[in-house]
Amino acid sequence: MNSAEHTHGTHGTNGTGGAGTETEVTVLGLGLMGAALADAMLTGGRRTTVWNRTPGKAEPLTVRGAAEADGIRAAVTASPLVIVCIRDYTAVRDLLDPVADALAGRVLVNLTTGSSEEARVMAEWAAGHGAGYLDGAIMMTPPGIGAPETVIFYGGDEKLFRTHEPVLRLLGGRPTHLGEDTGTASLYDVALLGLMWGTFNSFLHALALVETEGTTATEFLPLATDWLTGVSSFMGLYAQQIDAGEFVATDASLATQLAPVEHLVHESRARGVDTRLPEYTRDLIADALAKGHGLDSYARIIDHFRTAAS
Amino acid sequence: MNSAEHTHGTHGTNGTGGAGTETEVTVLGLGLMGAALADAMLTGGRRTTVWNRTPGKAEPLTVRGAAEADGIRAAVTASPLVIVCIRDYTAVRDLLDPVADALAGRVLVNLTTGSSEEARVMAEWAAGHGAGYLDGAIMMTPPGIGAPETVIFYGGDEKLFRTHEPVLRLLGGRPTHLGEDTGTASLYDVALLGLMWGTFNSFLHALALVETEGTTATEFLPLATDWLTGVSSFMGLYAQQIDAGEFVATDASLATQLAPVEHLVHESRARGVDTRLPEYTRDLIADALAKGHGLDSYARIIDHFRTAAS
Repeated sequence: MNSAEHTHGTHGTNGTGGAGTETEVTVLGLGLMGAALADAMLTGGRRTTVWNRTPGKAEPLTVRGAAEADGIRAAVTASPLVIVCIRDYTAVRDLLDPVADALAGRVLVNLTTGSSEEARVMAEWAAGHGAGYLDGAIMMTPPGIGAPETVIFYGGDEKLFRTHEPVLRLLGGRPTHLGEDTGTASLYDVALLGLMWGTFNSFLHALALVETEGTTATEFLPLATDWLTGVSSFMGLYAQQIDAGEFVATDASLATQLAPVEHLVHESRARGVDTRLPEYTRDLIADALAKGHGLDSYARIIDHFRTAAS
Repeated sequence: MNSAEHTHGTHGTNGTGGAGTETEVTVLGLGLMGAALADAMLTGGRRTTVWNRTPGKAEPLTVRGAAEADGIRAAVTASPLVIVCIRDYTAVRDLLDPVADALAGRVLVNLTTGSSEEARVMAEWAAGHGAGYLDGAIMMTPPGIGAPETVIFYGGDEKLFRTHEPVLRLLGGRPTHLGEDTGTASLYDVALLGLMWGTFNSFLHALALVETEGTTATEFLPLATDWLTGVSSFMGLYAQQIDAGEFVATDASLATQLAPVEHLVHESRARGVDTRLPEYTRDLIADALAKGHGLDSYARIIDHFRTAAS
């Protein structure tokens, strides 16, 4: 199979890259993120092939030593490890379906953002074509690619992950294998993005409130970030309570939190700031109180999410 | 006035406390928080009078040297500085209205949780009775009272705050004067509580999602807290953008965040987890995109809260 692909791959090779030039890793897609990934590979000393659907994106990488493939087939066949990071999974399938045969015996690492279902379907597709498959989620913006603290989640075959961990570490210093289920990385990705958005939304809500008193964002920032440090440490306590199923408040009970959240709704309304976020919290607290959980900590609110899930 | 109050105050004194025993500070209300406040005063070596509406709460403090007043008037007249931390502002007024005359020439520090309006009304009330007034908000649970890192916000006359800062520092190592407006502490209090609830809610939401894959809270915790550290640092970037009114994304643009938030809605629904939080975020992002802000960072969402406020 591979030699056949090579024949295909070399077809039209322009001499500056393609399957004729064996490289260690291929990066498909040179958007902000894809370019950062390829750049990190070059920084790590890996012989790298790059390819982008629209031309003109490769030059900053070829000047650093990357080979530019002149077609998707040439790109795929250039390396045993193929990394793809493009718009969405539909685009990945559109891109790779015509060259699926060329993936046999190679490993595809898909860092495209998608859902866990899409990741599982993609894993089956890859397996059906004889390719190894890891599904990843990059928990960082492009400027952070290659940094030692950058986390990239991976789901899929652990042995495959361990084999390629050294090269994947070049992309982010903390490659984290979450499980054999290919969908896990996508799930964790959106779950943590939800934590990010939820935190940002309530930060912006809080800021809009204090702005009505003439406070600037820069003035408010240290109060908010210090506070978040404390909030983060409470999450540790709550995690223990949730796993133990023991919610009795050692700190602030839910009963003591109803009045403050009603104040927050009231302050928001009085200052013309959207009340949906505090109203949501108020409903969660009031519901827990109605269920007799007044002496429990905020960790008890996990029931709300679990109940819906059951 | 004061001598008359003393006459009232000594009325019924049982010899173990009351106005006859001059102390430096009085703490009214010995719930979990009030008791912690009084305890911190004793730890700081301050002669302290305590009082609680229902009896039997003072003993752990009197054995440490606190004087127990035998009535609210005796409690108020025992010290030049009176700290109150009880259920709500209505309870504070109910408690202090009958002894308002006794507050003249003293300083009342109200650490009860309430709204900024209630704080302002209370400040006027205190001024009308010749009392100094500071309104405070304790950004910590009772076990953290007295700790060097504990933040307590204060609003009101700055000179008064500076005068009493050394003793207030005993309650929390970081007493923070926010402004002359007495309502500021309450506003910041609920604004930051909103940030806490928003963060907790999205943490619990995320946890409910990953629990469906068999992940425990304790396993998920380090991923979430590490992630929050990054989120917190992005808040610094966003604060600068918000103050500058320049929102062009140097990281992830709003346009790139619509697909992931739709994935989150989808994952939540597929796993039976309440979708209201991600739907709220999706609406905010979609609205910003509809207004042509696709290339801006998430900081642009401040418009949503400000627009409602204008």
